[in-house]
Formats: sequence, structure tokens, C-alpha cells
Amino acid sequence: MIRTVEQYLESLNDGRQIWCLGEKVADVRTHPTLSSIIRTAAMDYVLPNHPDYHDLFVTKNEDGEEVHFLLTAPKTAQDLLRRRECYIIGARTGGGVALHCMGADALAAFTVTANVMDKEIGTHYSERVENYRKLLQRQDLGITGAITDVKGDRSLHPSKQKQHPDYYLRIVDQQKDGIVVRGAKVHISSTPGSNEVLCSPCRTHGEDDKDYALAFALPLNTPGIKLFAVEPVQRIYGEEGKFDYPKTSQTQPTECLIVFDDVFVPYERVFMCGEWQFSRTLAYAFASYHRLYGTCKMIGKLEAMTGAAALAAEYNGIENITHVRKKLAWMAMITQMVAELGKAGCLDPVSEFGMDVVMPNRMTINSAKFTFASNFHQMCQHMQDIAGGLSTTIPTYRDWKNPDIQPYLEKYLGAKDGVPTEERIKVMRLIKDMTGNFWQIDTIHGEGSMAAQEMFLYGSADWDKLKSAAKRSVNIDGWQSHPIYGKLLSKDLVKMPPVDESYRSIPVTAR
Amino acid sequence: MIRTVEQYLESLNDGRQIWCLGEKVADVRTHPTLSSIIRTAAMDYVLPNHPDYHDLFVTKNEDGEEVHFLLTAPKTAQDLLRRRECYIIGARTGGGVALHCMGADALAAFTVTANVMDKEIGTHYSERVENYRKLLQRQDLGITGAITDVKGDRSLHPSKQKQHPDYYLRIVDQQKDGIVVRGAKVHISSTPGSNEVLCSPCRTHGEDDKDYALAFALPLNTPGIKLFAVEPVQRIYGEEGKFDYPKTSQTQPTECLIVFDDVFVPYERVFMCGEWQFSRTLAYAFASYHRLYGTCKMIGKLEAMTGAAALAAEYNGIENITHVRKKLAWMAMITQMVAELGKAGCLDPVSEFGMDVVMPNRMTINSAKFTFASNFHQMCQHMQDIAGGLSTTIPTYRDWKNPDIQPYLEKYLGAKDGVPTEERIKVMRLIKDMTGNFWQIDTIHGEGSMAAQEMFLYGSADWDKLKSAAKRSVNIDGWQSHPIYGKLLSKDLVKMPPVDESYRSIPVTAR
Amino acid sequence: MIRTVEQYLESLNDGRQIWCLGEKVADVRTHPTLSSIIRTAAMDYVLPNHPDYHDLFVTKNEDGEEVHFLLTAPKTAQDLLRRRECYIIGARTGGGVALHCMGADALAAFTVTANVMDKEIGTHYSERVENYRKLLQRQDLGITGAITDVKGDRSLHPSKQKQHPDYYLRIVDQQKDGIVVRGAKVHISSTPGSNEVLCSPCRTHGEDDKDYALAFALPLNTPGIKLFAVEPVQRIYGEEGKFDYPKTSQTQPTECLIVFDDVFVPYERVFMCGEWQFSRTLAYAFASYHRLYGTCKMIGKLEAMTGAAALAAEYNGIENITHVRKKLAWMAMITQMVAELGKAGCLDPVSEFGMDVVMPNRMTINSAKFTFASNFHQMCQHMQDIAGGLSTTIPTYRDWKNPDIQPYLEKYLGAKDGVPTEERIKVMRLIKDMTGNFWQIDTIHGEGSMAAQEMFLYGSADWDKLKSAAKRSVNIDGWQSHPIYGKLLSKDLVKMPPVDESYRSIPVTAR
Amino acid sequence: MIRTVEQYLESLNDGRQIWCLGEKVADVRTHPTLSSIIRTAAMDYVLPNHPDYHDLFVTKNEDGEEVHFLLTAPKTAQDLLRRRECYIIGARTGGGVALHCMGADALAAFTVTANVMDKEIGTHYSERVENYRKLLQRQDLGITGAITDVKGDRSLHPSKQKQHPDYYLRIVDQQKDGIVVRGAKVHISSTPGSNEVLCSPCRTHGEDDKDYALAFALPLNTPGIKLFAVEPVQRIYGEEGKFDYPKTSQTQPTECLIVFDDVFVPYERVFMCGEWQFSRTLAYAFASYHRLYGTCKMIGKLEAMTGAAALAAEYNGIENITHVRKKLAWMAMITQMVAELGKAGCLDPVSEFGMDVVMPNRMTINSAKFTFASNFHQMCQHMQDIAGGLSTTIPTYRDWKNPDIQPYLEKYLGAKDGVPTEERIKVMRLIKDMTGNFWQIDTIHGEGSMAAQEMFLYGSADWDKLKSAAKRSVNIDGWQSHPIYGKLLSKDLVKMPPVDESYRSIPVTAR
Repeated sequence: MIRTVEQYLESLNDGRQIWCLGEKVADVRTHPTLSSIIRTAAMDYVLPNHPDYHDLFVTKNEDGEEVHFLLTAPKTAQDLLRRRECYIIGARTGGGVALHCMGADALAAFTVTANVMDKEIGTHYSERVENYRKLLQRQDLGITGAITDVKGDRSLHPSKQKQHPDYYLRIVDQQKDGIVVRGAKVHISSTPGSNEVLCSPCRTHGEDDKDYALAFALPLNTPGIKLFAVEPVQRIYGEEGKFDYPKTSQTQPTECLIVFDDVFVPYERVFMCGEWQFSRTLAYAFASYHRLYGTCKMIGKLEAMTGAAALAAEYNGIENITHVRKKLAWMAMITQMVAELGKAGCLDPVSEFGMDVVMPNRMTINSAKFTFASNFHQMCQHMQDIAGGLSTTIPTYRDWKNPDIQPYLEKYLGAKDGVPTEERIKVMRLIKDMTGNFWQIDTIHGEGSMAAQEMFLYGSADWDKLKSAAKRSVNIDGWQSHPIYGKLLSKDLVKMPPVDESYRSIPVTAR
Repeated sequence: MIRTVEQYLESLNDGRQIWCLGEKVADVRTHPTLSSIIRTAAMDYVLPNHPDYHDLFVTKNEDGEEVHFLLTAPKTAQDLLRRRECYIIGARTGGGVALHCMGADALAAFTVTANVMDKEIGTHYSERVENYRKLLQRQDLGITGAITDVKGDRSLHPSKQKQHPDYYLRIVDQQKDGIVVRGAKVHISSTPGSNEVLCSPCRTHGEDDKDYALAFALPLNTPGIKLFAVEPVQRIYGEEGKFDYPKTSQTQPTECLIVFDDVFVPYERVFMCGEWQFSRTLAYAFASYHRLYGTCKMIGKLEAMTGAAALAAEYNGIENITHVRKKLAWMAMITQMVAELGKAGCLDPVSEFGMDVVMPNRMTINSAKFTFASNFHQMCQHMQDIAGGLSTTIPTYRDWKNPDIQPYLEKYLGAKDGVPTEERIKVMRLIKDMTGNFWQIDTIHGEGSMAAQEMFLYGSADWDKLKSAAKRSVNIDGWQSHPIYGKLLSKDLVKMPPVDESYRSIPVTAR
Repeated sequence: MIRTVEQYLESLNDGRQIWCLGEKVADVRTHPTLSSIIRTAAMDYVLPNHPDYHDLFVTKNEDGEEVHFLLTAPKTAQDLLRRRECYIIGARTGGGVALHCMGADALAAFTVTANVMDKEIGTHYSERVENYRKLLQRQDLGITGAITDVKGDRSLHPSKQKQHPDYYLRIVDQQKDGIVVRGAKVHISSTPGSNEVLCSPCRTHGEDDKDYALAFALPLNTPGIKLFAVEPVQRIYGEEGKFDYPKTSQTQPTECLIVFDDVFVPYERVFMCGEWQFSRTLAYAFASYHRLYGTCKMIGKLEAMTGAAALAAEYNGIENITHVRKKLAWMAMITQMVAELGKAGCLDPVSEFGMDVVMPNRMTINSAKFTFASNFHQMCQHMQDIAGGLSTTIPTYRDWKNPDIQPYLEKYLGAKDGVPTEERIKVMRLIKDMTGNFWQIDTIHGEGSMAAQEMFLYGSADWDKLKSAAKRSVNIDGWQSHPIYGKLLSKDLVKMPPVDESYRSIPVTAR
Repeated sequence: MIRTVEQYLESLNDGRQIWCLGEKVADVRTHPTLSSIIRTAAMDYVLPNHPDYHDLFVTKNEDGEEVHFLLTAPKTAQDLLRRRECYIIGARTGGGVALHCMGADALAAFTVTANVMDKEIGTHYSERVENYRKLLQRQDLGITGAITDVKGDRSLHPSKQKQHPDYYLRIVDQQKDGIVVRGAKVHISSTPGSNEVLCSPCRTHGEDDKDYALAFALPLNTPGIKLFAVEPVQRIYGEEGKFDYPKTSQTQPTECLIVFDDVFVPYERVFMCGEWQFSRTLAYAFASYHRLYGTCKMIGKLEAMTGAAALAAEYNGIENITHVRKKLAWMAMITQMVAELGKAGCLDPVSEFGMDVVMPNRMTINSAKFTFASNFHQMCQHMQDIAGGLSTTIPTYRDWKNPDIQPYLEKYLGAKDGVPTEERIKVMRLIKDMTGNFWQIDTIHGEGSMAAQEMFLYGSADWDKLKSAAKRSVNIDGWQSHPIYGKLLSKDLVKMPPVDESYRSIPVTAR
């Protein structure tokens, strides 16, 4: 089914235990700052119900039932492209993290891993995953994925932590009908607006850590689950929020610290339970899917950032300065590259793990993610450079709305003739907001740190091809068997007349 | 027709006036250093005649005749992808600049510009271009394109130069059957092995410069054409060259300074003659095509560079060092990005100028070129860093072949057990060669400087879309009419309950 | 005299017109956020009165009176080094912008410019400046400098602005005893805690703009002066502020928009009045002094940033990871470079303008400023990378102090054994605070944008020396007269035996 | 004594075993390419004998004898500054590596290490070192230092190499009067023109590697020493060399591979013999001295590079283009920074190891080296970018001197009016030469790789100070005992009135 917005909103009034800025939240729908997350999340239900987007977001499952496309498994390059399209539309529309991103990517990764486990060690997880998928589809639930553990000391394995064994989410008891889990997942996006959370390991495991090889899904109001919401970027909301922090006050950090305080999970909702050899598969599959999401999310952000810089240049009267144009060109280029590389990553997917599920091309999708993560601070620097110091000293809503002050701001903060001062202030506030460190840190660490991409890139590069290219150049054996470099024709096929050794400028060659 | 290699080689013995290192070259096929260019160029005739590549490189023209694919006009995205494939194969096979690259791109640009001129000002150039194309196809000629003028003082327009008016190639006389041209084109690739040269303006023109708005084609042995070949990277050849400078000695700088010393061009070979308003079209079209070529050429180079760095790391015993892996991952990423962006530039082409000819997407193809041009020196730095100082102090062929010396080199220049010392030396020589400044400078300036790409990127970016993205974020009027941003749904569609103002952590909002 | 802290604090209760977040501020000393600025500013009075720092901060003027050292003119390299030492101590102690920085630098620049004007056009400004200086010394006043105008359209000169002529502060009337000024200065640091403001042009002027060539000083409670304080980084204060935003809540953005609403300035306080040719001198002198200040301010910031990253690495358990160490080494290097280049800029000062006043070396001091401005975002990226996502999702004071929540945070946000969780939280909050965009934008634009440093660097480089170095290498005439390159000995002084031309590896040279 | 140039040149005819490009060199003074090294090296004897430089380069030893200053030990900051001055003059004069650089730095490092060893383990090396120093002074010998071993597999310790134990220079026999050594040192600068070689370990050692903990000095014509000279940058010389490769043909790669084929060293010339604990001291001391040298060498190079780029901009007519100016400003800044940081490294030296010998400040000197090493490729990219493609396709001496060709080059390679074409060609050749990869690789690896500097920077940074800065900011215990941060005054010294909690814009703080 496809739920209405009203049904979705109503479903959040479910008794979940959630705190924000140290206060217990009675209802996420009415909390001053969290409610803006809910409004954005609700767009995931507006879109499928709207005629313009119905065909993109709604598909039919094998039972002929209308379901949310992001709750289906991607089986072809076309599916990945459509998934990408949904993500882009969602991110552009809401301006922030979509409700179904983490969760949908975790669900796809469950499918891949279940396939692999069933094939390799004879488990029957695929059936469980498909049953759970049908539940989600039938009830059209909002889902998030919880991957990152709190980790404790990064230099120690999960079972070797010194203070306590709960720095990574783990199985503390196996019972007849299910298991009991304990631990915490940190900075989990989209949590306040989700119905369900899908948990997955965030790293590879050795056998000693098998109790940490654990995947499952639960409703967020399950007893024992506690949600601690992240501080909002600013402690304001409503029109004031919209004016002062136009992006973040509308999308808010959606992250929560989720504590699992000895929570029971019935077996039908458990999708990995000690199979430590496959934590890697699950973590990698999730990463591949979620980096595709990252590129989609960033398209909207990068477009708004580049456009804001262009507007600031225009309003400041510096749009014809050479170095400003070069900076804008560079920003537009990065924006284009992220979009094109994200698309290319779908067009040439991999299906190594599962039989019938595809994942974005690893080299390409990690290139895309690394491109925006490594260049984001430079984007910010350029924006701040172009906008000028006013991007941090720009007056607030309360300044602007004070009739004693407004005339001075109106007069003195004008710039290019014909541009209302209020529009210039709005663009400056937008730049102040977008270059804040919430976005910066999210860009580095969201979808995995840069080191993670470097690891993927190193691990996924076709070193045989690359070394063959070098070896053929100097005829070191080994390239001949490469499917591309081994088949290239030799220049010896060209029969040339002997060299004329009479030129004075070049010595007779050594023999 | 498709010529044989022998026919091609024979055709170069045509009396052309060419010098190298100050000496007159009697025959390019037997000159110690130039002959290696000829061997590489000849691969453009080996490939179409070889069963493995016949289907890629040979097509039929409208008369049903077999012709070289690169002599046809690209009319679809598929044509661009096939053109790309030809370029990649040619560059990987020969290891250097293909014979038909500059020329084929100039020919395609002639087609675009003729289309535009005929449509806009009623000329009949298209017929001339097509006749010339048929001549090339029938005789299967090797072609190069000559774009860059010597330019004199860069701050002055062609007709405003102080010392003489010939810093840009120009029309000095219009006669009954043709025109007389004077000037010089500089660092023109693939010249020694070409049969024909296609000349085109390298910049936009004003009306004062109309005598410089000039495009034509001529055989390279036309009286009055003088070719001055560029210094080889090293003044060695044969086995010595192959060992010491394995890449450049086999491909050599193919560039020539071409002087047109009052040369007659018959009208059927003139494709622009004073139509100064269209110099821009021609220069831009050439640039778009040729930047696609640049990405193809670089794939082979970047693969060999990344592979050589990986081999050096392996042979030196440092392949497990973290910072080495990060550098290798980055190099593999750049290689991947150039390949994927080049492909993406074909998949989404533009056809704005001509009616039935397509060009690579400007944003994407300029992103691809800028990616390798701006990062190439970093690639070199990483290679040199990983290879160690030995990449510059590595012994030569003459050292290695001296039996008094070889045992010492054999013993002391070994490294990883199991890797023959000679292989390590070969990889070091390869790195020394590839990181030389010929490639560096070619990478910056070949296919246009970085400033040229920045200009294209600034000029081609969809500023309306980008500004609309920013404007929608802060509701500055103007985004509503944008085809993407104007159609996004509003969050006002979500009806939310009123905010609860009782939380102590957040002040009551300003109203 | 040297005032006590109490005298200073009392002096601020002077009826000044100041607003913050749209509200009129009754008393800056008791305003929730502004009061923290005042506390920091007061350290400028604690230090001279404290035995540890008395000798550094207090000197005697020519009348034998004890005065604040920063209110004296720097006449030697030693004076610049002592000034630097005062700035560094002030910045490290208070953690933010010192009270006497902008003002002291403006005062020094007034001295330089008065010297030059008096000498070149026979004015008597030096006497006025010295009288004003004595007033400041006698009353030991806190001063700020107001340089940056609001500027309007950056592409238009002051007198050519379209909307109104007041985008740059200007003389609107010249009366018998003084002048009337109108305009606004924007993002002026240290304003809320200062007694006096010293105004100076921020650009060069042509004759048309002579009404904008204007320097003067006034008490901040002068009728017609209105102060609009910048938004605090967060709208919190007290212990909560100290915990959540440990740096910025204690130092706050100190910037104000200062409006001069037809304000009268008596002539004895006017130090430039239409001498448009000397706006450049004044702007350049201020910039040179203030970039020295910038390097001092940054030492404390960069030390705390590098140290915080090192603590985060230690607490996270990643301090032995190679790439983390490289990042920390790089951060320590930038910190060292800024300190050493700042010192070097004092050791080799210039005195071109005034007779007896010195300024920091332009090349060196601009190198120092550019080093931190251009690398600051990279510093932030490294800090955020090392700290992890927790640097943005870290709980707040209100979370931590809630006894229902603290046990969960205590347990799950621990990391390295032995490090109290609260300390890890504190370091994460510190990193969150320091990498926020207030510091980023301040680092770019404070003391002038990067483009301004590039202009200085280009304008100050010794091109004659640099070109002579190149010319001597290839013997292009012109280097012979250079004092360094012209005096170097020639290698022709070495008489060598003739070359042996019998080696086979090298061809006989061309002659 | 101070030798004459003639005495020096005569001393090189000493029967040394040296090869170049596979040919045995009869006399280094007459070899076509090596002779240019000898000419440059001879400048180290021209300078002390010349009245302009006598006082700088000549000092008296304790016996009142005139000796070369670079053969004395640096005991004060002033000595380091004078040493720096000698190096700078030498490098600017000869345009390349000075004769006494490696050797003088090794000699100074011997002194430091002997001091430490004698003090810590009671050896008597200091006397030997001083005796050897006196020998050098009395005979005024040219010296080089040989540090870098060939190393074999970098992942294995010296004694654990698999193919043979000689990848690091080692003691193979201890006899009554001396030791026998075997191994090879690679890319040792200044070898062909030196009389003596001073050998030192290039790494730290464990006890297993004690046979590799070895320092000694020998004449280069000692039986068993074989010198294999590095390939010249180009195989040309004389006027042709000077025109085509104006820098490198005059200075040549001076590096040799030095093989020690079971060479006897008498004990009076042995300065470390198995004291493996002190290899680190020796390697670090050498590195500190030699990085100072590196900064001196680079001043001349960077000045010529920046100047050449400025001349190219001027000659090309692009010197007023904004982005060209920014690039030139940046190049001038890097040049300035290297000079100032090198000087600062002398002003604040360390003397931790020896009692009476000083070394450059480690943080500062490594910052200086890293600055040029990490930015050098960017310097090259800017030069190539500004110069244009002509910097690689520029004609050679043989082209220019051919009277059939010169008129065309004269005409077409002109640019800015008034600049002779030959001068433009010369600058282009200079840029082609300076941006070649010999300099690039030398800049990375000469004086130690960037990883080595990063290691030094990490190891030398004052982490206690840096962490104290951070800790004080958030009041984590530990900063109180720091000599700087622990002594700063507290803001609690300022007694402030209570906060006014009635402002509506800021919530009452949490308590």
C-alpha cells in the first residue's frame, strides 16, 4: 500500500522514547525543532501520492500491490537509475536527507548478504528478508538504517574493548523465539521520522567477534530502545528559523544516538546472527548503495551552493572578476562531476555477491563520493570568499524585523542596484547556513569517511589491468595474458626501412 | 578505400620540406628519431586491416565504400562512443598520439561550422566539406589539424600586432581559383606522418580580423609549406631509445612548427574565408571534439602511470605502506574518473550548432579534461615519491649493457626478492620517462589550457538551474519558472499540528 | 596611566546605543552573550596590572608616564617584536580578539600616514595624531579601528554608487570646528568593549572620491553612532555556553555594524580630510600592521586546533595510524610556519613611508597571513576527519546534565580506556566549535581577503631580483646591474682543459 | 690552507675509477658532460680566493691557519647563519649543488654524534673526527657525504634482506689497523668533483644490524671504490648545451652510484663502528644540517624559476592578466617563505645532542624543506601554464643556428614588441630545462623524502604545548603545568555583574 501523509504522521505518535537537548519529547510532530524533520520526512509520502511523481515512486510488487519503489530490490542498471532518480527528487524537494535512504540501502544490503549466505553456507535468510520486505511494503513503513556503532577505542576489536563489551551492538542472549541485543548506534540519520530501524555491522569481523555479527530490524517504539536526538544547528524554529538558517532549520540534523538497552528481537526479524565471515559483505554492500545515495543528496546541495555563490557574486557586483568566475566554474564542475559519476556508477553496476541484485560500480561510486567529500571544504572556502565577511556578520530575523533597525540595514546592506536588500541578506544567510560545519562534517563522514573510500578504491581498482599497461610499455612479462593489454597489436607489424645513421645531431646508437 | 601499411608508408616519400634538430630530413621513414613517429602513425593503418579491429575502424560510406570510421561525421551518441573507442584503442596500442586525432576532430568541426554558416548566411561550404571528406575517404589519407597560431603578443588582436601582421595565419591574396595564405601554426601534433593538414582559427575574431577567419586543407608537400620538427625528448633511438625512454622514444614529440610561406589554396579546399563571426563556432567545435580525444589519449597514459607506480611500490617493497596505498588509490581514481567522464560526455551530447552532427557534452568533457590537466603534476609527484630518487638516477642502456658494470648494477639495484633487477630498472626508466616535462606540458596545453576549460565550464554551466536551486532555498523569486526547481512540490503540502512552545531549551520564536 | 579593570568596566556604562539580536542592550556588561566579550576585553586591563606581565605591557612615554605599550608607535624591529609578544599573550590568554588590536593598528597607521602627508604636502597631522595618542595614553582608553565600509556594489567607486552616496563613510559637511560624517562600517571587531573608534578608508581613492578620504576618531557613545552587534555563534551563555561552545561563547563574535548617522567630529580628532592621494598609504599601512596581529591571533587558535586534533586522535585510539600522524604533522607545521613567518616579518621591517616608524616586512607578513588563510579549511577538514562524525553529533550540556541521559552517554561515548567520557565530550565540543564557520570566514576575511594578500605579494615582490636570477641563467642583458645577481662571480674564471670529443655516447657538439 | 683553483683541478687527476653512460672516463676534467660539474665545483675554490668573498668563506682555525669556513663546526646561531650565507652564495653563483654541501653536513653530523657517543658510552671518536677535520682543513679538500644506501627491499631490515646482505653498506671484516667495508651508496651528489667521501648510515638500526652502523671517510681514488655517474639530463655540452639546457647542462646531475667493493678503511678514518644505538643520532643530525642546505640551494632555484615565469609572462604579453599575477604572486611567496623559514631555522637552533655544536631548529627547517618539496610541482605547473606550449616545443641551438631556419624562427616566434626573439627562446629553453623531472625528483628526494619531513615534524612538534592549548580551552586537567599555557591568567580575575536574564532572544541558561 501507499500510505497517506496523514496516516504516516499519525503513525509517529507511537510512544517512542526520544529526548532532545536534554528534554523528553512528548510528540515529535510538535517539538519546535524536530517537527521540521518530520515535515521533510513526510515528503516521502507526499511524492508517491502526487500525480507528478506517482509513476516514479510507485511500482507493483509480485502480488500486484502498489508499493514504494525504494522498498524494492534493485535488479538491473535501470533499477539503480530509477532509485537514483527517486533520491535526487527527494533530496531536491525536501532539501535534506530523505526518509527512505539509510533504510532502503540497508534493506538492499540485507538482500545481497542473505543471498550470499544462503548460497555459501545454506542458511535461509533470503526468505526472512523477503517476508520482512513484504511487511514493509504492505504497511508502507518509513525506515532508517543503523550502521555505525559507537566503537569505543578504535584500535581495539569489538570483543577486546577494555571498559565494557558493548561498544559494538551485540547479541547478549539467544532465546527460543529470538535474541536479546545490547549496544548503541550513533549519528543515525532520519531516525525521528522513521517507523522502523534496520541494524547492520559497520565493519569486518573475526571469529572472536561473532556475537557482533548481527543484523535485524525493529519498530522504533520497541521497549528498551532509547533515542537521543542531536542538537539542532540553531535553537530556533518557525519563520525565524527559516530566515536565519534556511536550510538546516528546515531539515535539521536528523541524527540520533540509538541505545538498545537489552532489547528483544524475534527471529523473523533477525537477518544475521553470528555469521562473522559475512559482516564484510554486508558492510560493503551497504556502503556501495549508500554512496550512491550520497551522490544524489549532494547534487541538490552542490547545486544550491554553486547557485548561491553565483547569486552572491552577482549581488555584490563582482560577477565579472576573473578569479570569481574561475571559482564559480570550478564549483559548477564539481557539481557536474558528482552528478555524472553517480550516473555512471549505475550504468556499469556489479553483481558479484548476489545472484539477482546489482550494486553500483565500486570504483565509480567511490570516486564520486571522494570527489565531493575531499572538495567540500574548498567549496565552502570559495563561497565564503566570494560572499565576503558579511556571510558571517549578516543580521538575523530579529534584527531585520525590528522597525528601529531595518531602515539602517535596508540602506547600508544594499549592493547592486535593483537587488532588494532583503534578497541579498537572504543569500548571505543561506551561505552562512550551508557552509556551517554540520554539512562539512556530514559530507566527510556521511556514507563513510574518506579513508573508507580510499580503501574501497585501492581494493577495487583493476591492478592487473593497470600493471599490464605499465608492463607492456617496457615489455616486462605478464601483460600478454591481460584481456585488453594482451590483445593489442604490436608495432612490429610495421616493417620499416633501416635507420639512416648519417645525421650529425644524433649519435650512432649503442648496440 | 582502406590503404595498406605499405601504401601509407610509401605515400610519405612525397618531397615534403622537413627539418629536425637543424638538419634537413631526407626521408621521415629513415630518420633516427622521426621514424618512430612514423611507426606509431602506421598503426592507424594496421588496425583497420587487422581482423580483430576491422569492424571497429572500418565502416561504409553512403556509396557503400569501405572507409576509415574516423573520417566520418559523428551523428549520434553511439557514433561518439565508437569514435571514443577508436581513439582509446589507437592510443593504447601505439602509446602515443594517434594519426587521425587532430585531423579527424578538425574535419568534424568543419562539418559543424559549414552547417551553421550555410544555414545562417547562405554559403555552400557543406558541399565542399563533404567533397573533401570523400576525397579523404577514397584515398584513405592520414590527416592532422593545425589550430594554434604562433600568436605573437597575446594581449593584441591578430590585426593589431606590432611587428608584422603574420602572427596568425591569414589570407594575403584572393585570386580567381583560390587564395594565398601566410603565417605559421605551432606545436601541431602528428605532422610528420600525415598526408594532409586541416587548418582552422584558434580564437574568436572581430570584423577587423576577418582575414584571419580562415579554414582550409592542403597536402603537406604543397610548395611553400615548411615543417620544423620539435626536438626529441632524448637524442637516442633504436633499442637504446626503447630501454632508456620507453614511451617517448617510441612516440616522440610529433609536433611541428608549420610555416605557410605564401601558399596557394584552391577554393575547393577552402572552408572558411573571412566569415569572422564563425571563427568562434569552429574553434569551439574543434575544442569539444578534441577534448574528447584528450580523455581517450589520457586513459592509456594514466593506466600506464598508475600501473608503473604500483609496480614500483611492489618492487621497492613498500606496497603495504598506508600512504603509498592512498596515493595509488588516488591515482586509480583519477584514471577512472577521466574514463567515466569521457564516456558520460558522449552519452549526453549536444547538437546545438549543426543540424545532424553531435558534439560531446561541454560541461562533462571539459570536466574530464580539467581533471587530468589539473591533477597531472600531482600524479607525477606521487609516482616520483613512490619510485624514489632512483627514478632519476637510474642507469642507462649503455650502463646496463657494459659487462664491466652490469654485475654491480645487477647486485645493488635489486630490491624485492624474486624480481629481476632488469625489471626494476625498466620500471624506473619508464617512470623517469613518463614524468618528464614533455608529457606535463602536453597535458596542460594539449587540447587547450586549463584557462580554456575554465572558460568553457563557466560559459556552459546551467546558471539558471543553479541559481534557481539557491533561490528556492530562500524563496527569492525566479525559481518558479525553472523546469526542474519550479516543479518541485512544496512542503506546505504537509499539514502539521502547531508547535508546542513549552520546551525550556528553545526560546519562543520571534514573530 | 594604567586603568584598573574596575575603572575600565565602569567606563563602558556610557550610554552607547547598541542592539543585539534585535533587542536594545541596556548594559553590555550584563547582556547574556555580549558580557563574555567584555570579560575577554577586560583582560587587556588585567595584564598590565599583573606583576607577571607588567613589564611587557607597560612602558613610559616621553613624559615619564606609565602607558599601555600598544598605545605607542613602533619605531624599531624590537618594538614590533614586543608588540607581537603582547598580541600573542593577549590572544592566548583571552582566546579571542584582543581589545587593542584593530585600534592599535589603526593608530600606528595614522602615525605613518600623518608623517607622509606632512612631509609631502605640508599638513600638520602628526601633531594632531600625537595629541590624540597622548589623550589615549593619559586616559588609558580601549580602542578599536573601523576600516571596512559596507561598500555597496563592489564594481563601482564610492562616488559612483547608484542607490545613494553613503556606501562608504564620507564627509557630508565641513564646519568651523569640525566635520559631519555619514556612512557605516561593517564587521568591526572589538566594538562592544571599546571606548573609542578610529576610522580609516579601506581602499585607494581617486580625486572624485575625495570626500571619502577620511580618518578620525570618536568615543563610541557620541550621539549619532549606532552599534548593531553580530549574532552570537549560539544563543546560549554561562556554564552551558562554556560547555557547548567553549571558544566562541567566551569570545563571541565581537563584530558590530557601526552606523554614523550624521555625526560631528571636532578637527582635533580628524586625521585625514580629503587627501585622497594618501588613502592608499593609510590602507596599506593598516593592512601591514594588522596582518601581523592576525598571525599573533592565529598562533593561539592554531595551537588549540592542532592540540585538539591530537587529543581527539589519542582519545579515539587512532594516534598511531600513519595518515593521522601525517595530518597532525601538517597541522603542527602550519602552526609553526605562521609563528616563524610572523616573527621574521618583524625582524626585517620596512620604514618606507614614515621617517621614524617601522612596519612589518610586507612579503613576509603577507606570506604568513596567506599561509593560514589558505590552509584554514584544510585544518578544519583534518580536525573533523580525525575527530569523526561525533564532532558534530556530540551531546550538549543539557543532555549531559540530565541524570536520565548521562549514564548512557557515559557508557557509550567512552573510548580509550582511562580517559573520562566527559573529557572526550569536551574535546569533541571544542572541535565542533572551532571548525564552525565563524572562524573560517573570519580567517579568510579578517585582516583582508586572500586576494588582498595576493595583491600585496605581487606588488611587493622584488621582481628585479627575481628576473635578474632568470636572466643571468641564460645571459639576457639586465642582470649585470643587480646588487646581488650582478656581483656573482663568473664561471669563466675557471680555466678548464679542452673537452675530449672521443666519447661515443655523446655526439660532437654543434658549433 | 686555501687551495687555488689550479691545485684543486690538478688533484682530481688521481686515478679514480669512474664511468659515465657506460664508458670509462679518462679524466673528469675533459669529459664532455662531467667537465661542467667540475667547473661548477671549482667555484668553491674561486670564492675563497676572491677578495669579494674571502671574508665570508675563509676563517682561521685554532692553529691560526686560514681554512675554508664550511670545514669548521657550527657552534652558534651566527655560525649557522654564516654557513647558510656560504651555501646561498655558492648555489646562486654556480647555479647548482655546491661541492662542500653533502660533505660539510656529514662532517658536522660526525662531530655531533662523536660528542654524544663519547659522552654516553666513553668512546674517543671526537678526537678522530677533529684530527680528520684538521687533515681536511690543512689540505683544503673537496668533500661529499654518502648517506643513502641502495636499500634493496624497503620492507626488510638491513640484515634481513633475502638476496644478499650488502644492500646497506657494512663492515665485512675488522682487522688490526682498520676495517673492510662492502656495499653501495646511491645518488650521491657532488661525487665527481670531490676528493673525499664521508659515509654515514641513512636509517636507525637495531642490534641485529650493528654491522651496518658505520661511519668513515676515504679518498675517492681508494682501491675498490667504483663511481658510476648518472646520465646527464641531455647528451650535449658546450655552447649547444648552454643554449638548450642552460641550467642542467652547466651543473649536470652530479650524482654517482658509489660501490665499495671490499674497501679497506684505516681506523683513524672510522667514526662509527657498530654503535647501532647512535645511527639514529647521526642520521638525524645529518638530515637537520642538510635540510638547511636544501633551503639555501632552493633559494637560487626558486628565484630563477619565479623570475623566468615573470619574464615569460612579460614576453608573451600576459603580465596583466589577473590569474597570471596570482600565480606569480604565489611563486614569489613560496620563494620568500623558503628563504625566511631557512633563516628562522638558524636563529633558533637546537643543541640537544652535542655539548658545543648547534643544529638548525627541527620544526622550522623541516617546514622549510616540506614547503618547497610539496609545492615544487605546482611551481612547475604554473611556469608551464604561463609559458605556454612553446616551453616544450621551443627550437634548439641547432635549429636556431641554421641560417635556413633562423629567419622563420626569428619572425614567427617573436611576441612582445621590443623583445628580441632570441631572448624569448632563451627564457622558454630555461623553463623547459628547469621544469624537467631531474629537478622535480631531486626536490622531492634530495635531503630526504616528504615522508621523512613529516616524520620529523611529527616527532619534533611540541605536543605538550599544543595539547595544553586545547586542554586549557575546555579545562581538561594537564595544562596547568605547562610553562606557557599554565601561566596564562584566568578570566575569573575579572569580576563581572550578574547576567540580565530578561532578554527575549536568548533562553534562560540551563543550570
